[in-house]
This record gives sequence, C-alpha cells and structure tokens, in this order.
Amino acid sequence: MKKHNFGAGPGILPDIVFEKAAAATLNFNNSGLSILEISHRSKDFVAVMENAQNLVLDLTNLQNKGYKVLFLQGGASLQFVMVAANLLEKKAAYLNTGAWSNNAIKEAKYYGEIMEVASSKEQNFNHIPKNYNIPQDADYFHITSNNTIYGTQVKEFPKTNVPVVCDMSSDIFSKKTDYSYFSLIYAGAQKNLGAAGATLVIVKEDILGKVTRQIPNILNYRAHIDKESMYNTPSVFAVYVCMLNLEYIKNTGGIEPIEENNRKKAELLYGEIDRNPLFKGHAVPEDRSWMNATFNLNDESLKERFDSLVKEAGIVGLNGHRSVGGYRASMYNALPWESVQVLVEVMQQLEKIS
Amino acid sequence: MKKHNFGAGPGILPDIVFEKAAAATLNFNNSGLSILEISHRSKDFVAVMENAQNLVLDLTNLQNKGYKVLFLQGGASLQFVMVAANLLEKKAAYLNTGAWSNNAIKEAKYYGEIMEVASSKEQNFNHIPKNYNIPQDADYFHITSNNTIYGTQVKEFPKTNVPVVCDMSSDIFSKKTDYSYFSLIYAGAQKNLGAAGATLVIVKEDILGKVTRQIPNILNYRAHIDKESMYNTPSVFAVYVCMLNLEYIKNTGGIEPIEENNRKKAELLYGEIDRNPLFKGHAVPEDRSWMNATFNLNDESLKERFDSLVKEAGIVGLNGHRSVGGYRASMYNALPWESVQVLVEVMQQLEKIS
Repeated sequence: MKKHNFGAGPGILPDIVFEKAAAATLNFNNSGLSILEISHRSKDFVAVMENAQNLVLDLTNLQNKGYKVLFLQGGASLQFVMVAANLLEKKAAYLNTGAWSNNAIKEAKYYGEIMEVASSKEQNFNHIPKNYNIPQDADYFHITSNNTIYGTQVKEFPKTNVPVVCDMSSDIFSKKTDYSYFSLIYAGAQKNLGAAGATLVIVKEDILGKVTRQIPNILNYRAHIDKESMYNTPSVFAVYVCMLNLEYIKNTGGIEPIEENNRKKAELLYGEIDRNPLFKGHAVPEDRSWMNATFNLNDESLKERFDSLVKEAGIVGLNGHRSVGGYRASMYNALPWESVQVLVEVMQQLEKIS
Repeated sequence: MKKHNFGAGPGILPDIVFEKAAAATLNFNNSGLSILEISHRSKDFVAVMENAQNLVLDLTNLQNKGYKVLFLQGGASLQFVMVAANLLEKKAAYLNTGAWSNNAIKEAKYYGEIMEVASSKEQNFNHIPKNYNIPQDADYFHITSNNTIYGTQVKEFPKTNVPVVCDMSSDIFSKKTDYSYFSLIYAGAQKNLGAAGATLVIVKEDILGKVTRQIPNILNYRAHIDKESMYNTPSVFAVYVCMLNLEYIKNTGGIEPIEENNRKKAELLYGEIDRNPLFKGHAVPEDRSWMNATFNLNDESLKERFDSLVKEAGIVGLNGHRSVGGYRASMYNALPWESVQVLVEVMQQLEKIS
C-alpha cells in the first residue's frame, strides 16, 4: 500500500532521489564502484560537492554576494557550538521559540553572554514573539525559522543591523526567501534538503575572523572554507543525496512551484483543522507553520478510533511530539498534496462516525 | 570490467553490503519507506542502532566490561577535539606517527599541555617509534594504530598504567586485538567499518567525568551515552551501512578469517615489493601495515608504463599520498586476495617488459 509519510524528520524526499541514490550505491556514475567506496577526493565526488554548493547558491540567489557553502557533519546541534565559537566575542542575542532555540542558547552560553530577547515558553511555544529589541552591540542575532515540535514558523524577520544567524533546518527551500538578509544559515539536511548526516552551512565570509578566541580547525568555519568543505572526509552519501534533491528542485522549476504547493497543502489541512469540530490547532493562526501542523483532538476518547483510521489509510509519522501531544502533520516539500487530501478525508471520516 | 579497489578510503566494502544498502534506500525492512525518510526514533531504526552497538561489543569482546558504543558524526577529526575536551585536565601524552597523529596533537593543544613522547617525523614517518616513556601523570596516552599515508602500523602497544586512547580509523576489525587494553577507541567508519558520515567511539565509562571543564552537550561523551547515541539525529544511513558490514563480519566467522586473509594479502604484496627489483617499500619492514602498503618505483621513468598496466588491469585507487609519492595499495578487509594477485601480476609484467 502507498504510504503517506508525515514524519517530522528524517522526512520524505522525492522518489526519484531515492532511486538515484540506490543506483549509485551499486554503481556510481558507471564507474563500476559504489558511491560508498570512492575517495571523497576523486574527480567524480569533487564534482558532486561543487554541484551541490552551486545549486545552493543558485536556489538561494546568493551567487557573487560573498557567501560560502559548506556541507559539514554533526547536525544543527554541532552548529549551536560552531556559531558561538566562531562569532561570539562578548554577547549575542537569541530568540527563544522552542526546544531547538533553547538548546542553541544553552550551548552558546559556554562561549559568552547570551541575551534572550524574547521567549514564548510560557505559552508552550504556541507563537513567535514579536516586537522585541535586539541590542545594537550584540555580535549576532540568532533565530530559528521554523519550530517542528510546536508547528510555528517565522513569517517576518525583524529589521536589524546586527548580523542574523538562522537555524533553517526544517523549512529551508520551502518558500521564496530573501536569503541575503542572513549572515549565516545552517540546516540539518534530513528534512527538506537531503539525508541525515549532512549539515548545510551558508556563511557570509565577512562575519568571520572577528573573535579573539582560538578555535580548533574542525570547529572553525575558516578551515572548512579554505579546504572547500573537504577539510576532512565529508558525509559522502548524504551530500550526494542533497545534490540529487537540489537538482530535482532546480529541474522542476525551483522554489516557486514548491512554495505554491506548500501553500495549498497548508491551506487544505489548516482549513480542515479549523472547520472540523473534533480538532483544534496548537499554534496561533498567524504563526502557523507550513511545514509542521500541530493539532489535538478536543475529545481524547476518540484517539483510538482516529489512530485506526489513520493507520488504515497508510498514513505514517503523524504522532505529535511529547511536548505538545496530539498530532503533527509534517508537510515537507516532497509530500504530495494528495497525501494531505487523504489525511483530511480521514479527519472528515472520524467526524461522520463520531 | 571488474574493478580492483585499492583506494585508501572511503574504501571497499563487501558487495552484499552495497546490495542491502541499495535495497533499503528504496524500501527499508518492507516498510514501504526508504531508510532515508524514516525517523531515527522509529522502532526499526532504534533496532539498527542497538544491533550495531551490540555487534561492536561482540566483535571486540568488550561485553560487560564497562564500555559504551557510540555512533557519532564528524569523523576522527572531531574526535581529536572531543577526546581532549572530555579527558584532558592538565597534560596528555601523544605519539606522533604521521599526519593524523599530528592533527590530533594540534587540536588537543587547545585544551591543555601536550607532551609528544616520540615522533618519526624526521624519517618521513617510515616507522613507529619504540622505547619511549609515557609520563605516569599524563591524563591519557594517545596513539594512532595505523597510518594510512605512510603505511605503518603499530604491532605492539606499550605497557602503561595511563589510560590509552587509540585512533583506529584505518585498521579496526582487521585482526585479533585485545580491545580491553584501550580506554577509548575511535574510528571514522569509511575504511573497514562502513560508510563515511559515521564515527565509531568505544569508551570505557570510568574514564569520564574527571575534567573540571564545562563541555557543550554535543561534544560531551556523557550526553551521547545518556541518550544511547541518539542525542541528536545520527547519520542514519551510514550507521545502517556499519550495521550491515558488522553483521557480514559476524556471519562470515568474525575477526579470525579476516585476519588470516589480511595476513595472506600482505605477505603476497610485500613479498613482491621485496622480490621485484623495480620497486622499494617506504615503511621499515617490521612496522609495515597490513592495511596500506606504500611503495615506489626505483626508476621513475617507468611510471607511465606501470600506470598504464595498472589501469588496463582494472586497478583503481593506487596513487600514493603526496607526502610519500609513488603508490599505496590499501588492502582493507573487503579487498579480495584475488585483487592483490592481479596487482602482483602487473608488477611482474612491468619487470618482464622493462
């Protein structure tokens, strides 16, 4: 049976990406070798890395604007440390919009003073705080663009002269964005980008080299830039999957059709959450995420019945995170509109039989 | 044409591992989902992680001896930092046997005093230093068991009461070893273990918690142990490939037949290097690596002819590292004896026509 994968991540990617990745695992570029057994310094893999980097610059419209693209390891969690180690001299400003922001703050505190400019913690992170002040003397301002656990997403970024660092792990490439607003963007690959094990970093070079701290090479963006993202052996297969997916995005018309599709999926599902008397959303409507819709049953006694219907329909990965409970429908780029339609039908079916 | 992959890493793995990895990229455990789109917290992947961890304990004979197994990211290069951050309070002793030891020393210096107990740098790392003193008050002693670039391998580890940390990236699981001698072992997966993007760490718990330094969670072994190697999203596919290869090792009789095969391959190739008047080895015979044999032509004018013969035979990955020049035949576990036989025949062919 066809599965409808609403998992929060590692998440769904286009079938063609899986097919090409599987083929390369057996025979990469007709070399007679698996992509798992080739040197990362081979001509063919260097081309993969360069292609992936150029596609990122292309899709973000950041060519010739002083940015470098890296594919590192360690996930967003290692970026929490690298951002602070490389950029934090005295103090930095962080917006606390959920568990991941909170972890970013905790890890950065090892390197300097952290000012939490605002937090929605008291409301279980059901909204994105607004109208906060970013101190002019902060080394940078850190923001998480999308909060998978709570289903909130930043719709408008604050005006500031302070360099902005963004954890874009769960919504990169999901809609048109002025990427040049950011000085540093990072994203674990395992949602909209590619396979777990690769971490994308897009960094404006002019923000580097301003801290007095000595930084070990492996944690130093400069060392990775100087070696063109091959300071050490990269996560070869995961980078290849990113490249395949970036190619797919480009070949299917870029970000615009993705945005249009994501908008339609979100409208369909949130429309049903609002209409159907059995359900309520967690996030406030204005901050609702297009990537992760969080919702609960008003009557918990219907849970078993709903879960059965969900399972029968081939829907997987719909369980909410324990911090919010209920359900979370992750609608990453590769999730078809038809899968959302199936979920909405199941919600309507529950209404009919209840 | 059948390829003979002598690449230094990412290196050759058994064909069955590639086949199973490719199959799981399309449909993992008959779930109807790719292994690239499943949650790392799903029952099926938690089982992969646990299975991989148990296989490591099994193959190293370290069950119930106080060791924990982690599959992290960032390669050996990130371990250079994590080892020092977690274990170095005052000073540590390092043996310098090549480029990787040297990098380990450089990165550790950010965290405390490093004493280089011995070095073979002056002889371009063509041997493993012996008869050095490890200070009793060192927090740990760090050694690289096999040096891929120079083709040397430690045959006997020093007697010491100081906890021993070993970078075993390029020879783990290649021969019978008393793994309980070590307090911490780490290995980038991309040689004998699995795919690039996973890093194996085997750590004896009683060496942790002795430094006064505060350590960010992502760099803290304790945080990874407490979350059973799922502190953050692991490199899912790379860990799966490790598990497949560990299963293969176990199912084909464990380390003993591997050791026997590796011994035969090394004897065959080094025998030819010593016999054939056209070639000379780089490493001193007593420290020759079973994993990476480094050798040069005595007459560089034969290079073009030899390279042609190598290519015609389907041999790939034989170029030496720029630090040593000449050739490097990496003979990881999965390289068949027949591939070494083909290389030896090519060396003999060159002798005949020269």
